[in-house]
Amino acid sequence: MSTPESRTPLLDRVAGPHDLRALCDDELGALADELRGEVIDSVSRTGGHLGSSLGVVELTVALHAVFRTPFDKLIWDVGHQCYPHKIITGRRHLMGGLRQGGGLSGFTKRAESDFDPFGAAHSSTSISAALGFTMGRDMGQPTGDAIAVIGDGSITAGMAYEALNHAGAEGRRLFVILNDNDMSIAPPVGAMSRYLQQLGATQAGAALRDLAQGFEQALPPPLRDHARRTRAMITGQPGSGTLFEQLGFTYVGPIDGHSMPELLATLRAARARATGPVLIHALTVKGKGYAPAEASDCCYHGVSTFDVATGAQNKSKPNAPSYTGVFGRSLTEAAARDPRLVAVTAAMPSGTGLDIMASRFPRRVFDVGIAEQHAVTFAAGMAASGLRPFCAIYSTFLQRGYDQIVHDVALQGLPVRFAIDRAGLVGADGATHAGSFDVAYLANLPGFTVMAAADEADLQRMVATAAAHDDGPIAFRYPRGEGVGIDMPAYGETIEIGKGRVITEGSHVAFLSFGAHLKETLAAAEMLARRGITATVADARFAKPLDTGLIEQLARHHKALITIEQGAQGGFGAMVLHHLANTGGLDQGLTVRTITLPDRFIDQDSPERMYAAASMTAEDIAARALNALGIGRIATVA
Amino acid sequence: MSTPESRTPLLDRVAGPHDLRALCDDELGALADELRGEVIDSVSRTGGHLGSSLGVVELTVALHAVFRTPFDKLIWDVGHQCYPHKIITGRRHLMGGLRQGGGLSGFTKRAESDFDPFGAAHSSTSISAALGFTMGRDMGQPTGDAIAVIGDGSITAGMAYEALNHAGAEGRRLFVILNDNDMSIAPPVGAMSRYLQQLGATQAGAALRDLAQGFEQALPPPLRDHARRTRAMITGQPGSGTLFEQLGFTYVGPIDGHSMPELLATLRAARARATGPVLIHALTVKGKGYAPAEASDCCYHGVSTFDVATGAQNKSKPNAPSYTGVFGRSLTEAAARDPRLVAVTAAMPSGTGLDIMASRFPRRVFDVGIAEQHAVTFAAGMAASGLRPFCAIYSTFLQRGYDQIVHDVALQGLPVRFAIDRAGLVGADGATHAGSFDVAYLANLPGFTVMAAADEADLQRMVATAAAHDDGPIAFRYPRGEGVGIDMPAYGETIEIGKGRVITEGSHVAFLSFGAHLKETLAAAEMLARRGITATVADARFAKPLDTGLIEQLARHHKALITIEQGAQGGFGAMVLHHLANTGGLDQGLTVRTITLPDRFIDQDSPERMYAAASMTAEDIAARALNALGIGRIATVA
Repeated sequence: MSTPESRTPLLDRVAGPHDLRALCDDELGALADELRGEVIDSVSRTGGHLGSSLGVVELTVALHAVFRTPFDKLIWDVGHQCYPHKIITGRRHLMGGLRQGGGLSGFTKRAESDFDPFGAAHSSTSISAALGFTMGRDMGQPTGDAIAVIGDGSITAGMAYEALNHAGAEGRRLFVILNDNDMSIAPPVGAMSRYLQQLGATQAGAALRDLAQGFEQALPPPLRDHARRTRAMITGQPGSGTLFEQLGFTYVGPIDGHSMPELLATLRAARARATGPVLIHALTVKGKGYAPAEASDCCYHGVSTFDVATGAQNKSKPNAPSYTGVFGRSLTEAAARDPRLVAVTAAMPSGTGLDIMASRFPRRVFDVGIAEQHAVTFAAGMAASGLRPFCAIYSTFLQRGYDQIVHDVALQGLPVRFAIDRAGLVGADGATHAGSFDVAYLANLPGFTVMAAADEADLQRMVATAAAHDDGPIAFRYPRGEGVGIDMPAYGETIEIGKGRVITEGSHVAFLSFGAHLKETLAAAEMLARRGITATVADARFAKPLDTGLIEQLARHHKALITIEQGAQGGFGAMVLHHLANTGGLDQGLTVRTITLPDRFIDQDSPERMYAAASMTAEDIAARALNALGIGRIATVA
Repeated sequence: MSTPESRTPLLDRVAGPHDLRALCDDELGALADELRGEVIDSVSRTGGHLGSSLGVVELTVALHAVFRTPFDKLIWDVGHQCYPHKIITGRRHLMGGLRQGGGLSGFTKRAESDFDPFGAAHSSTSISAALGFTMGRDMGQPTGDAIAVIGDGSITAGMAYEALNHAGAEGRRLFVILNDNDMSIAPPVGAMSRYLQQLGATQAGAALRDLAQGFEQALPPPLRDHARRTRAMITGQPGSGTLFEQLGFTYVGPIDGHSMPELLATLRAARARATGPVLIHALTVKGKGYAPAEASDCCYHGVSTFDVATGAQNKSKPNAPSYTGVFGRSLTEAAARDPRLVAVTAAMPSGTGLDIMASRFPRRVFDVGIAEQHAVTFAAGMAASGLRPFCAIYSTFLQRGYDQIVHDVALQGLPVRFAIDRAGLVGADGATHAGSFDVAYLANLPGFTVMAAADEADLQRMVATAAAHDDGPIAFRYPRGEGVGIDMPAYGETIEIGKGRVITEGSHVAFLSFGAHLKETLAAAEMLARRGITATVADARFAKPLDTGLIEQLARHHKALITIEQGAQGGFGAMVLHHLANTGGLDQGLTVRTITLPDRFIDQDSPERMYAAASMTAEDIAARALNALGIGRIATVA
């Protein structure tokens, strides 16, 4: 690919990490510069997670140069910082399709490359996975060293601590790179973050200390100067040493994560000498080397396509308010009327819309960091004290707090309000971020109320309903993206618990939609109407308690009943079927169908195309109805 | 209640903590001695968690004496150590019904007493809940200080770390008592445990240091000597101080958790002076004061009734091998044939039966501590390296690893084998330990195979089947307690994936049982036979993939089809209904019923009586069949 004018002469020679290992150290530094330009250029055309990828350019090059990937297992935590890694592991030519249908995932993914030994997207899994590979190596599997790269935001999650605790006790050779950019998605929170800041500030200029395990001695003489800022404390004494040493790790750092010589020297020394678990603390800058990204607090975490010269992002103008914004504003209004209303986020103040409430009521919004387990039980404790907590966590991340929902909230009947954003398929983030399972894992919990918003006005009502609901836990789900453009009242009225609503009336088929697929369902009804088939369309609003009166009425007066939901089997449709079966509603025959997400994971694409892949378009729904009615079988989808 | 000969003259005067606050310090010490005797006597007659309760007798008395419970919120982590707490908070007269139907819970429980502000039973929730109460207090709710008491085993869970991280950053007045008995259920594991041991050993004799926040100065002069062993390090400097200080806590300790003067002095000083979060490290002895318990490594964690003089437990002789034992032995046999087979437990080597494999293959069994999230992803990492991991976690605790199951195992299709003990209702441990939801939260995950064992011989076969299954994740569930007494082969043959088996054939009604309720189902079939109604009884074996051929055959050839499972709605029955609905199997009418756990939590009792409360006895099943067939409606249960 190299041409005389190529701006990336070194990168053009790198088909994979083996090519990179033939370069001298100076060339590796120059390669990193080229790679940074390539990442900026590439993401400017696709959008994606720019800032975190720019922060690890040198680290990516150094790791692949020093370790023998893919025999050595390099595991990127979360994986949104993996664009430089993808570019130098044979996927450069595919970067134009990043996060698009049929293209590269925005995260690491086992199915995509041997250089991705363990896929990611949810945070804080890398140390556990790396320790698993380490055991495999020590038990004779053909695998080399395992290296986990984890950010300072991700290391606040309990799961990372559990893994450090186990790895420290095992004492096996294992590498953890703490990529400390003092910024994950939102400004960092928590005592660990403060601790890391102190560690960086006080240790950075510390004198080189004689190291029992001799990391510095292993450095080639010209590089020893660079190691002056590298300090490891290996005392093993409680009451001294870093937190990581207290957990059994050898701590090396902090080092400059953008200095190629320092990175290479440290990694080479660690690789040559380590006999147990080593934590290398690298200080990096999110967005490094691209001024608009370095200057941004969070906007360059995930970006649209943008103009490289100016940094201006090409954001499409929304046609309707986003569900997230409607939630944030509705909650703020409710908070203004109720001083006992509080809200909890797990490191997503902006993503959840809680930043809107925080700007007006900063002391009533709690960002606990990436810590969903704690977030749920902390909210339960606040509810037990008499407060009215909203716990705003995306569907996919709420999975992290499932036991706490069952055990601390549901079992005690505590009125925690769960605001579940990103329900259903979410687009470019793909299968790992899909909110597929929340209805199934909540609707069978005794005492829970489970709602789904069909449009932004109903979301507003559900916020008001949840705020007023003190009789036990309540959840409401809503999708990523824009609403349907419906008129919004000044503030939401509460809705009756356990009651759905009929939107349009027909006589042949009944559609019972739960949540935001109401739009497609109404479109399906219109398609059917053109063929002379009239449909009743109802919005269930509640998966628990079910509107059994509505269900029975729909079943009684139509030739077929079809449930629709943006979720997996075992959720709303299953609850309808259980009810019908156990009240005899199926005994005399009922043509009933459940439209749910299919039994497979769906890769990233636009949400519309993902739902098409799921056979859930308006056409699909209409076809299911025709098929159920025994009409036009030939035209239907299997 | 006091009589001249009472052995508990002080305790007899304590109707509640307010009475205890009228006692002088010497009397509090004497009261603790009486309370210890009362706990031993009481548990000898009921069975229960003896060792952990004996370890906190002095702590319980001191906490209630110093703090103003129930206005101050005392939160016991796990809650199995709460017997002394129950006795002195007005529940002494109910201790005879401990862990029995209609009696006291074996854990703290909000519904039981105002002195139980936050119920427990799963570990590591107390700090999160206490911080929630702290926020409530600081926002004007009528609640006082919050005190979490957490064991050294529980603090290894990530959730506790998440809470420490948040509490340390918030800096609010909050008390965490670390009850360090160096023994939770099994011998402790992990780097944190080693760290705490070092801390105890090296700090215990350390000289008293001038304390910036002046805890010692607040002690009355006669008690200062006792505080010599109390050392707090409040430097705030990284690289020094304890791990807890690095997370923002004031650390006090270690202190002797059985010395009433030391406890009272420390708690009073902390209560008088604390302005931020304080961690008090108390060294205790599990089983303290009762020789048979102190001498035991784990057997006195949970005990049967026993003879106080000798310590001999009254264990009933089993009629059949326990499911746990069958699992442990079957797995050990499989491990003997496959060097790549490894196993993971989260602090339950004996409870899961993995101790059997560990005694033969100690290096292939990993106890990661109370860390279910890490356990699952660690197993996934091992699977990715080519090993064949079994992850043995009780149904209720596996909820802690749900996101990791979805995201790290299912999404990547990794062949982790989940051995799910304690499925269904479990008896004395009650609702918090019920394994109600696993089928529902696993059976809708793409690529998963989900089995349930109907008897111990099938469990043996499922271990062999899982060991041989490399095509993706696989799970098998089995209940607590003894098998049915069936003949066992030397080792288990594999079974065909996705195929059930017909046990008996009849013509009127078809029972499709999934799992260990097959026994009751067969009994129901016999009852029906006495009325001339013949039943086909099939064992589904698989909730995923479903044996659709079997289901369709049963539906076609019987007047009614009834599914039975020891789990909540949304599980096996729901999957059967989804299948029937979407293949047109309900269109012409099918009398189908799903027998599941009901939509409420069921309190502790014998498993038999709990299933009776769930309307799942053989009689209930027979009645449901009669009702479904339109026979004998009068006699049936609603």
